[in-house]
Amino acid sequence: MTPSNIFPKPAAATMQRVDIALGQRSYPIFIGQGLLGAPEIWQHMPDGTQALIVTNTTVEPLYAALLASQLAGRYARVRTFALPDGEQYKTQDSLSLIFDALVQTGADRKSVIYALGGGVVGDMAGFAAACYMRGISFVQVPTTLLAQVDSSVGGKTAINHPQGKNLIGAFHQPRAVVCDLGVLRTLPARELSAGLAEVIKYGPIADMEFFDWLEANMEELRACDTAALTHAVQRSCQIKADVVARDEHEAGLRTILNFGHTFGHAIEAGMGYGRWLHGEAVAAGMCMGAHLSRAIGLVDDRFVRRLAALLERAGLPTRGPVLDGRDNAGRYLELMRLDKKAESGAIRFIVIERPGRAVLRTAPDALVRSVIDHCCETEPVLQPA
Amino acid sequence: MTPSNIFPKPAAATMQRVDIALGQRSYPIFIGQGLLGAPEIWQHMPDGTQALIVTNTTVEPLYAALLASQLAGRYARVRTFALPDGEQYKTQDSLSLIFDALVQTGADRKSVIYALGGGVVGDMAGFAAACYMRGISFVQVPTTLLAQVDSSVGGKTAINHPQGKNLIGAFHQPRAVVCDLGVLRTLPARELSAGLAEVIKYGPIADMEFFDWLEANMEELRACDTAALTHAVQRSCQIKADVVARDEHEAGLRTILNFGHTFGHAIEAGMGYGRWLHGEAVAAGMCMGAHLSRAIGLVDDRFVRRLAALLERAGLPTRGPVLDGRDNAGRYLELMRLDKKAESGAIRFIVIERPGRAVLRTAPDALVRSVIDHCCETEPVLQPA
Repeated sequence: MTPSNIFPKPAAATMQRVDIALGQRSYPIFIGQGLLGAPEIWQHMPDGTQALIVTNTTVEPLYAALLASQLAGRYARVRTFALPDGEQYKTQDSLSLIFDALVQTGADRKSVIYALGGGVVGDMAGFAAACYMRGISFVQVPTTLLAQVDSSVGGKTAINHPQGKNLIGAFHQPRAVVCDLGVLRTLPARELSAGLAEVIKYGPIADMEFFDWLEANMEELRACDTAALTHAVQRSCQIKADVVARDEHEAGLRTILNFGHTFGHAIEAGMGYGRWLHGEAVAAGMCMGAHLSRAIGLVDDRFVRRLAALLERAGLPTRGPVLDGRDNAGRYLELMRLDKKAESGAIRFIVIERPGRAVLRTAPDALVRSVIDHCCETEPVLQPA
Repeated sequence: MTPSNIFPKPAAATMQRVDIALGQRSYPIFIGQGLLGAPEIWQHMPDGTQALIVTNTTVEPLYAALLASQLAGRYARVRTFALPDGEQYKTQDSLSLIFDALVQTGADRKSVIYALGGGVVGDMAGFAAACYMRGISFVQVPTTLLAQVDSSVGGKTAINHPQGKNLIGAFHQPRAVVCDLGVLRTLPARELSAGLAEVIKYGPIADMEFFDWLEANMEELRACDTAALTHAVQRSCQIKADVVARDEHEAGLRTILNFGHTFGHAIEAGMGYGRWLHGEAVAAGMCMGAHLSRAIGLVDDRFVRRLAALLERAGLPTRGPVLDGRDNAGRYLELMRLDKKAESGAIRFIVIERPGRAVLRTAPDALVRSVIDHCCETEPVLQPA
């Protein structure tokens, strides 16, 4: 059977489906309210001998039992394994715990991992699935907005190295992604805002009409209005699906999805993983990226202000933190040289060529320094305001 | 350029070249005497910003400087990193040391790893290349016969888990394999014999004419005769290349390359990694596999004796060790249930359907127990005789 035969068309009228076209590795993203409790979704998951739900200690008490009950009919055995919650646990040690759990449950090549949680859980569970017995199936069940619109889609999996975010990882596509919008109601407001950073990102890099729509619907999104969330998640996934289908392994085009991430990763690593949420760091990073684009002469002031204004309305920081009181820009540069896009020590940035279109560029250190100096707080702060 | 354009035809008349046909991931295997010192080989390695030679402390003083000097013209920087020598170091901890070395040298996506050593080095360096920044290029420079005829070819990379050999890994094809037969002269006789186990394997699973040839040339091989080694390595690589090209990710056919390995992995894990060499464990495992094939009624006694006789002439063990004095067969079964070919707890074995052809089969525990009882020593021994 081809992937499109395995999965039925959504039953509910409000349910959206986006397909990632990757030949034999194609898979569907289901988006809708209450999907965790919808048996018609779960009966069409991949075949397998047993399932291991990988989650974290925050999400487990909320949704693990419901997911396990849905999967009980499909697999001879369903086990749950919970990691501590937070980016600071996206480590080799946590990954080893997942491997140990797989071994202890007697997982074989036909076992299926379900990643139930945010981006950290999805990245780690996906990487475990990529490596266990050289690759087993996994399904993404993202429970944060950020994971639903970005990290659960496209097959990037990874753990952090002390010296660099997502430095160790693999491309390993999930067999399906199930985005239940209902779970976003239990998400802390700060996490919802962090997810909106990645939603907003799709405007400047690919679709300014979507950006217009976000400007008109930001209040509905922050209030978790179902119709607004459905459109935002569906449109975000569609843009990402189109980009990933054209460049699965990030040979070129796919790097545009990293707008704001070069600066953002430096913020996350420099502050210590988990202090700034990924989406918060990306928000401040996108402001820096917009300023850099303007400094290069690609966009105007109005665009930069418009992006910052929408990020602010989403409850996100628009200025970077101080990473080093003596040479802040130097510290940013040092951390950014470890970015995976860097080559021969030259940092490469995603800049906005014109609103709705992004490209990869290098920039002189002096220019980057001036952007960092302009876009950062002047006093050290531990968390974004 | 396509891979076939990148690499020239071998310059020396005695040099052999085998190509692995995997579309964009195709690559050549160069086989010959003195290739480490042949500039015409090294000038055609993959482009990159820098090279990291990953080796072990035994091989480093012998060949690392020579390889580094060959690579010095191609890369802006060439560094060497040596791990301790032995299967017991094929661990997560060693892998982390490789990642640390990559980070410390500022390796980027365009860096190239050279795996200089035996199967342990190749598997670990290859797995590091598979995961670092989600995949960088690597080249295999195998310095043991076993690695030249088996582990360096085909893109299987892995580390061991305390509970199972090669349990954590990836498929990641090298960009080239360079087999210098000259290095085999410095190989201890025990290691050469271990490599011959994998050479002999290709007979029963694929080519009994090659098996005839091995029977006629075993003394020359053990004496490191260049012409004999060239043919043995070339034919082994050719058979493996054909199998891998038809089933890169071991969906089916490729499992035949694991003849003897289900029993063999149990021996390695049960004795503690590094005590029995992989090839030694596979030799005893092939004898068990041949006995199992006979017990099922697929081959006759004569075939079983012929295989054991050739393995003995190669200096290899033909009986398994005692892993548990009280319930030896039970311990073997317990370890084999963790084999990657097992499904739902059912162990699957490669058996010889007829000499020159192998298939994957399950077998009743009672039958497997009787084979183990028949094929194992009665007294505990630490190393093969």
